[in-house]
Amino acid sequence: MGPEDVEEALPKIFELNPDLLIVISPNTALPGPAKVREKISSSGIPGIVVSDAPGKKAKAEIEQQGLGYVIITGDPLIGARKEFLDPVEMAIFNSNISKVLAITGVYRILHQEIDKVIYAIENGQKPVLPKLVIDINMIRDQSEFNNPYAKAKAMAAYGLAEKVAEVNTQACFIEKESEKYIFLVACAHEIAQTAAKLAEEAREIEKYNDSVVRKPHAKDGRSKIKTKLVLPPVFDEEWTQKK
Amino acid sequence: MGPEDVEEALPKIFELNPDLLIVISPNTALPGPAKVREKISSSGIPGIVVSDAPGKKAKAEIEQQGLGYVIITGDPLIGARKEFLDPVEMAIFNSNISKVLAITGVYRILHQEIDKVIYAIENGQKPVLPKLVIDINMIRDQSEFNNPYAKAKAMAAYGLAEKVAEVNTQACFIEKESEKYIFLVACAHEIAQTAAKLAEEAREIEKYNDSVVRKPHAKDGRSKIKTKLVLPPVFDEEWTQKK
Amino acid sequence: MGPEDVEEALPKIFELNPDLLIVISPNTALPGPAKVREKISSSGIPGIVVSDAPGKKAKAEIEQQGLGYVIITGDPLIGARKEFLDPVEMAIFNSNISKVLAITGVYRILHQEIDKVIYAIENGQKPVLPKLVIDINMIRDQSEFNNPYAKAKAMAAYGLAEKVAEVNTQACFIEKESEKYIFLVACAHEIAQTAAKLAEEAREIEKYNDSVVRKPHAKDGRSKIKTKLVLPPVFDEEWTQKK
Amino acid sequence: MGPEDVEEALPKIFELNPDLLIVISPNTALPGPAKVREKISSSGIPGIVVSDAPGKKAKAEIEQQGLGYVIITGDPLIGARKEFLDPVEMAIFNSNISKVLAITGVYRILHQEIDKVIYAIENGQKPVLPKLVIDINMIRDQSEFNNPYAKAKAMAAYGLAEKVAEVNTQACFIEKESEKYIFLVACAHEIAQTAAKLAEEAREIEKYNDSVVRKPHAKDGRSKIKTKLVLPPVFDEEWTQKK
Amino acid sequence: MGPEDVEEALPKIFELNPDLLIVISPNTALPGPAKVREKISSSGIPGIVVSDAPGKKAKAEIEQQGLGYVIITGDPLIGARKEFLDPVEMAIFNSNISKVLAITGVYRILHQEIDKVIYAIENGQKPVLPKLVIDINMIRDQSEFNNPYAKAKAMAAYGLAEKVAEVNTQACFIEKESEKYIFLVACAHEIAQTAAKLAEEAREIEKYNDSVVRKPHAKDGRSKIKTKLVLPPVFDEEWTQKK
Amino acid sequence: MGPEDVEEALPKIFELNPDLLIVISPNTALPGPAKVREKISSSGIPGIVVSDAPGKKAKAEIEQQGLGYVIITGDPLIGARKEFLDPVEMAIFNSNISKVLAITGVYRILHQEIDKVIYAIENGQKPVLPKLVIDINMIRDQSEFNNPYAKAKAMAAYGLAEKVAEVNTQACFIEKESEKYIFLVACAHEIAQTAAKLAEEAREIEKYNDSVVRKPHAKDGRSKIKTKLVLPPVFDEEWTQKK
Repeated sequence: MGPEDVEEALPKIFELNPDLLIVISPNTALPGPAKVREKISSSGIPGIVVSDAPGKKAKAEIEQQGLGYVIITGDPLIGARKEFLDPVEMAIFNSNISKVLAITGVYRILHQEIDKVIYAIENGQKPVLPKLVIDINMIRDQSEFNNPYAKAKAMAAYGLAEKVAEVNTQACFIEKESEKYIFLVACAHEIAQTAAKLAEEAREIEKYNDSVVRKPHAKDGRSKIKTKLVLPPVFDEEWTQKK
Repeated sequence: MGPEDVEEALPKIFELNPDLLIVISPNTALPGPAKVREKISSSGIPGIVVSDAPGKKAKAEIEQQGLGYVIITGDPLIGARKEFLDPVEMAIFNSNISKVLAITGVYRILHQEIDKVIYAIENGQKPVLPKLVIDINMIRDQSEFNNPYAKAKAMAAYGLAEKVAEVNTQACFIEKESEKYIFLVACAHEIAQTAAKLAEEAREIEKYNDSVVRKPHAKDGRSKIKTKLVLPPVFDEEWTQKK
Repeated sequence: MGPEDVEEALPKIFELNPDLLIVISPNTALPGPAKVREKISSSGIPGIVVSDAPGKKAKAEIEQQGLGYVIITGDPLIGARKEFLDPVEMAIFNSNISKVLAITGVYRILHQEIDKVIYAIENGQKPVLPKLVIDINMIRDQSEFNNPYAKAKAMAAYGLAEKVAEVNTQACFIEKESEKYIFLVACAHEIAQTAAKLAEEAREIEKYNDSVVRKPHAKDGRSKIKTKLVLPPVFDEEWTQKK
Repeated sequence: MGPEDVEEALPKIFELNPDLLIVISPNTALPGPAKVREKISSSGIPGIVVSDAPGKKAKAEIEQQGLGYVIITGDPLIGARKEFLDPVEMAIFNSNISKVLAITGVYRILHQEIDKVIYAIENGQKPVLPKLVIDINMIRDQSEFNNPYAKAKAMAAYGLAEKVAEVNTQACFIEKESEKYIFLVACAHEIAQTAAKLAEEAREIEKYNDSVVRKPHAKDGRSKIKTKLVLPPVFDEEWTQKK
Repeated sequence: MGPEDVEEALPKIFELNPDLLIVISPNTALPGPAKVREKISSSGIPGIVVSDAPGKKAKAEIEQQGLGYVIITGDPLIGARKEFLDPVEMAIFNSNISKVLAITGVYRILHQEIDKVIYAIENGQKPVLPKLVIDINMIRDQSEFNNPYAKAKAMAAYGLAEKVAEVNTQACFIEKESEKYIFLVACAHEIAQTAAKLAEEAREIEKYNDSVVRKPHAKDGRSKIKTKLVLPPVFDEEWTQKK
Repeated sequence: MGPEDVEEALPKIFELNPDLLIVISPNTALPGPAKVREKISSSGIPGIVVSDAPGKKAKAEIEQQGLGYVIITGDPLIGARKEFLDPVEMAIFNSNISKVLAITGVYRILHQEIDKVIYAIENGQKPVLPKLVIDINMIRDQSEFNNPYAKAKAMAAYGLAEKVAEVNTQACFIEKESEKYIFLVACAHEIAQTAAKLAEEAREIEKYNDSVVRKPHAKDGRSKIKTKLVLPPVFDEEWTQKK
């Protein structure tokens, strides 16, 4: 999305009188996403920027704009070279990355941050917007694995997703010759597939020990929690008491 | 989406003066999606309904409405029971199903049908809207595998996705006791994971023979095709000549 | 086996003065197996019919005949098309299905039912003949897994075996053209292979937790039970006491 | 089967006026199987002994008896210790070994030898009875793989089956303490599982190259052959001509 | 190494005034390694012979020479035929065997024996030299697995390594024709790869249960021990007390 | 090895009058390895430095010293934290990395460079010393895969090995708290294991196509080459002619 697209599309969003705006884009420092941030910032509506590793450059600016951010270093760009811009190839890539982000806990961190902001808004409080860079250390410290090797494998999967970003960046922006970048993209997409398998293995360990953490929302929007498969989810308070 | 949501949301879509409307929903025979079809039909704008197995019931009605349809029997409902309505669980499920639909060729059939309609509209022709039920036989007849066992494995993956739908339907609408439906959902989600692996295996066979079909769009929107990894995509005409 | 084969073979069986007759066949409603049931029924000897999904049609008739039955919906017909009637292909298929039926607990249910009948006959009691349809719900309710995901994977394996039956039925009885049925059989046999792997995975989980249930017979024919690998099997009474 | 069982059962077999007798047993040198051989030999009916590695001891005697033999060094005894005499455990073991014997070509050699003998008898010729020890070298020389690594993996699977025999022999006949033999049986059964996987991998290679050899029988009993999945089986003559 | 090489190299070793000599070679009964043992024996320096299965022949002689020995039946010779003497092939083989020897506990036994000898020498005691044949039974009795199936899989991996030795011996010393020995070596190297996977699986089980035993040396050379990943290693005394 | 160790050990090496010296160490910029380079440089004997990623810093210095170098960015440091300094853990890590370096072609590049230098020395020519940084691009350009996805997977494996180095560096030199670095090391070692599997998969693809490149040395030290398993290795000249 270039800046002009933003000029066209954003007003329609504002018409909806949103309580919260979340903008998700690769490299939020690029002109298009930068324009969006600018508009949200000046609107006074609470806004959260979700972006990938190159977005780290814009952190200071985002803070000055009064926006929150969640930078995900393990959300790699796709191998956007013409040989790979096939809908099937792209869907497979996204399937793999989505599995990594789900299992390693990135989606958990993200939805919980958003839950908190929504909760504050619903209760008339000023929301505390997130300021997070989700790197391998945050996966280590915040993911919800009971088995330490499951955690280590999840961290490894996340590390692989970071490597995908590194290799695809070289393939898309540095190598010019197709016989060179084709192999880099193919390599990056193999790493993505491997990362998904490794993440899956992490979750399997938790299944083997019947300790998968699930956090469905209750009807009132509050978060519940469960681990043992046959038991119902309970509210956090009850969960903590039992422990 | 209930019928009231439709009444609220749809007018905003019509304001955009779209050339083509695509409505994607589970069971298009339910009140909400049915209302959408009604509105599109009476608008005179070309419309395509994308739905899952229960949508087959509405085929005659859709045809009467002058709409196109793509019914995907292997696009199963999720295990929508409270124990599993966890964002992580759901993202994993979607990742698995998306991989199956991509690799088995469902996404290919879908985007090519849409490409054709767009092409017609762009060229001022009356578009021929699709009337397709994508079942295991269509996977057999239209998927793009060069190795016959790759095709057989892809068909198997698709068959598994159909089984997921069958088991989750029992879990969501028939079994009432949690100690019974929990295992059905868990079973269905295991099948989904297995289906994704099997689909992946089908694609690996093609990689092993360097015969993966990729069909990126050219800048003018036309479809190109390539198989050997190191070769560039070419237009269909050129492809057919070479053969 | 056609009815004439039955007329020839069955008398030799009756000469052996059996205490119990078990007839195993696909679709017990077909003329041959139906003839066998008729003969057993009129002989007054206790009889048990073991059959597959199409056998469900004959349930009422079997009950009227005073026979027991065990219908196994996950015991699929083989892909009996000439291209696949190769001894190697068939042995592989049977190996896969046998593994599924063993691990998911079908063989357990079957031998325990037969054990009970034999025990009654040996003790001069009138045996209670089984009336069972083993479907995915019975796998859920009767299989002997300690880990819930092992159970879910076993159920999934069984569901896959049901799908094999569905696809092979289409391949053997509906599709007429070889270029169509060949892929359906190949697909069904891939599902069978995948089902065996999934069943194996279920058992591996129990190994990982040292909780595999084994039930060897004691020398007097009574059933014993053990889980921890290094411990000896014990009689059920002792087992229950310990718990 | 002890010698007395043989005295009881064998006469009933002879009553059927068989044209050919095939006796399959572990260690044909044991009293029961030895008694069977004696009886068949003196009956003058053509007979084939199928046995496992310990049966090699009886080779000279079998030849003197005028019988044929097929000794299969990779058909191991089961871990017949009370902890493992569970119907589920045994069915799994047999499933694994059966897969190995099918894929490595043992079943092929066996049925082709029997085919030849039946053909001779049907045509009023004196059958040439097989005198084969199927060891790893015969797998190498007679199995039907097109890819050399598929053959190497099949040989490896067969070698593993031989190792199962070696370890289970130690477990069943040498170790007396349960805490020692339990691990040997568990080890042997793990090797059996691994052998089945390795055999399967060998066949997958052939699938990946669409070169799986299948040899269905024609209706007249003659053998046909096919490799490419979509092509029909043809008679050997036609096959050889095409090459 | 032939005897002449030994004559040349060994004096340089003696110049270093070693406290302990360890000689590692295939088949220590061959002239070269035999010469080394002779020299060490007559030097009066404590010596340990590490060798493979054929080395068993020399056991009596080694004892007479006053040397210790560790014979590893699962340390197979490589497929030393010209087609396979490729540095890449050999490194892969060694990688696989090394993984088997590490995980099954062979390296543990070895380094602990050497630790004991070093400890004795450092403390001015006469070292007790090892006299060990590490076979599958010793793996069973000394390996450090907490899960019994992990142990069974490790034993299986070791059994496979023994089979590699058997097949490669046939390939290197018995078969003369390349079209025969090539398949034997390829088969043996496949078994080696499978053995490594099986060993890895054994270790994974321990990871799944967070019970991997690790024994790092403290700075003073004493052995420590740990299992739970997040806990620090402790000295044996402390470990035993806690239990 | 610190500088003092070098002062002690190196003279003994020089006593052997070597024609070529190869020094292998992590980070050749550290004092110990730097001292070695200095000594070799001043000795006038041809020398080659083999080191890992941090060694890149010393490239200019090495060139000034007149030495050759091979910097391997995918040869990661081990997780040298006390919890992991267990001989078994370390051997497994090395097994994994060795497999990656073998299959991706690093060992091939290395031994061919050394072969060339030896050849020159043997023939009285001044050897051309290598000046190579083996990174993912060199794997792409020099590895010997026939299938492009095999190459892509090998590149991916190498990229993972680079990631291991990155994570272990953080674990060993940056994180101070054990509850943080333990997970980083465990993560790095999981990546190493995954890298080995991915490399193995690359080689399997070549096996599936019977196109594994092997380059055994002839007895005179010259390199031969073969691909088809059953064919003998031939000299390069003959190989090129055939193509």
